[in-house]
Amino acid sequence: MPSNTTTVRVRYAETDQMQGAYYSNYFIWFEVGRCELLRSLGSSYRTLEAKGCKLPVIEAHCSYQRPARYDDDLEILTNGSLISPIRVRFAYEVRRKIDGSVAAVGRTVHAAVNSAGRPTRLPLEIQKLLS
Amino acid sequence: MPSNTTTVRVRYAETDQMQGAYYSNYFIWFEVGRCELLRSLGSSYRTLEAKGCKLPVIEAHCSYQRPARYDDDLEILTNGSLISPIRVRFAYEVRRKIDGSVAAVGRTVHAAVNSAGRPTRLPLEIQKLLS
Amino acid sequence: MPSNTTTVRVRYAETDQMQGAYYSNYFIWFEVGRCELLRSLGSSYRTLEAKGCKLPVIEAHCSYQRPARYDDDLEILTNGSLISPIRVRFAYEVRRKIDGSVAAVGRTVHAAVNSAGRPTRLPLEIQKLLS
Amino acid sequence: MPSNTTTVRVRYAETDQMQGAYYSNYFIWFEVGRCELLRSLGSSYRTLEAKGCKLPVIEAHCSYQRPARYDDDLEILTNGSLISPIRVRFAYEVRRKIDGSVAAVGRTVHAAVNSAGRPTRLPLEIQKLLS
Repeated sequence: MPSNTTTVRVRYAETDQMQGAYYSNYFIWFEVGRCELLRSLGSSYRTLEAKGCKLPVIEAHCSYQRPARYDDDLEILTNGSLISPIRVRFAYEVRRKIDGSVAAVGRTVHAAVNSAGRPTRLPLEIQKLLS
Repeated sequence: MPSNTTTVRVRYAETDQMQGAYYSNYFIWFEVGRCELLRSLGSSYRTLEAKGCKLPVIEAHCSYQRPARYDDDLEILTNGSLISPIRVRFAYEVRRKIDGSVAAVGRTVHAAVNSAGRPTRLPLEIQKLLS
Repeated sequence: MPSNTTTVRVRYAETDQMQGAYYSNYFIWFEVGRCELLRSLGSSYRTLEAKGCKLPVIEAHCSYQRPARYDDDLEILTNGSLISPIRVRFAYEVRRKIDGSVAAVGRTVHAAVNSAGRPTRLPLEIQKLLS
Repeated sequence: MPSNTTTVRVRYAETDQMQGAYYSNYFIWFEVGRCELLRSLGSSYRTLEAKGCKLPVIEAHCSYQRPARYDDDLEILTNGSLISPIRVRFAYEVRRKIDGSVAAVGRTVHAAVNSAGRPTRLPLEIQKLLS
């Protein structure tokens, strides 16, 4: 299963008054993780969309373990797998770089749709990359 | 099980270039839903925090059905239930007001912690409200 | 000059670890203010875009006075004025509903563009509404 | 005047249905710019806050020139200057890395406050760094 690690640093904008990152931001970091995974495989989500294939999220889950703090360097470990020619699944682990402790784990499931929003098969080269 | 319905309107800021609301924003609407549920019960999350009890999210899930669009009036149906004296669970349904169609359903689980971040029992009156 | 007042409640997602609303969120509330101003005039930004006219922001300014806090009910006072057939300006005041104290004042300037992104005249009825 | 350049990549979450980055996000990139400027000078905003000095924004301005697009690599050029022992000003230029074209220019002014929210002098070492 293809995987990749990328880094994000927690922005002040992403904190809340509980002094950690607000919970919805982890899903934005997941987006960074899956985009960088595609890039690491020699493709990119931008080019996928340019070919008329979009990957809206149909399911998202996150389990929070230790809050990420402002200015923390986080590693987003992402792996991707093809569920079917029209479905992709990504799994994520968010770790603090400083000590490797896990902040959260999650997953997203995506449906491939064409520019009209209709279900479509992923381009073959993407299917191969994620197999 | 106590429940409540509140309304949000999709902001331009919440859309993305796929022409619908970006997926992490549903979790922010869930936050609006659970806060308004507590208010409808005669309490509020603000007063809960003022009493030294916070409710960080420990698990979040969303299943997306039909994208919410810019300027859509959305109803957030929220119900809450006590899992234990230190755990609460909320379930959500996001519906378009215009036709009642479901945009997404989700849930969040929260742990009660005190101001030091240690697990704590929810105040008794909140426990009663959510029973 | 047409004006309108609308209300937003500060979301937990909009706070930061300084215990008030993060500064960029005021610009999102400004968006709510100008959209509701157009609606109060019998039009809407959604219909304007449907007619092929978009209003990207070309300048934005905000002066912050007293931080808005979580769960505060805020009034967004907005007025709009036509600078030229292709330029609109909105001015905003954000006030706490509870005591009328001003949290921030700001302004945005917008250029009318067509669906190709080229400068275009605002529809005449919008020009009239904002005169 | 101390200055620094840092890079951000436009996230899908930051786009809106006009197909470019939503205007409030530039202020978040400005935050990244000023934090990385402080880090490049051997300090950091995190340590400044740890010493009991916060820098809330009291004024913010942005002039938008060409929209930043999804997945664009942006350079944030930031310089900082001391206005007085209790005021700092940062200026920003956001450029596309691919062609050096300017997406936006802006500025923010900040007041130094202590943990009680009262005006305070910036620590001397920060005053020196920004002189």
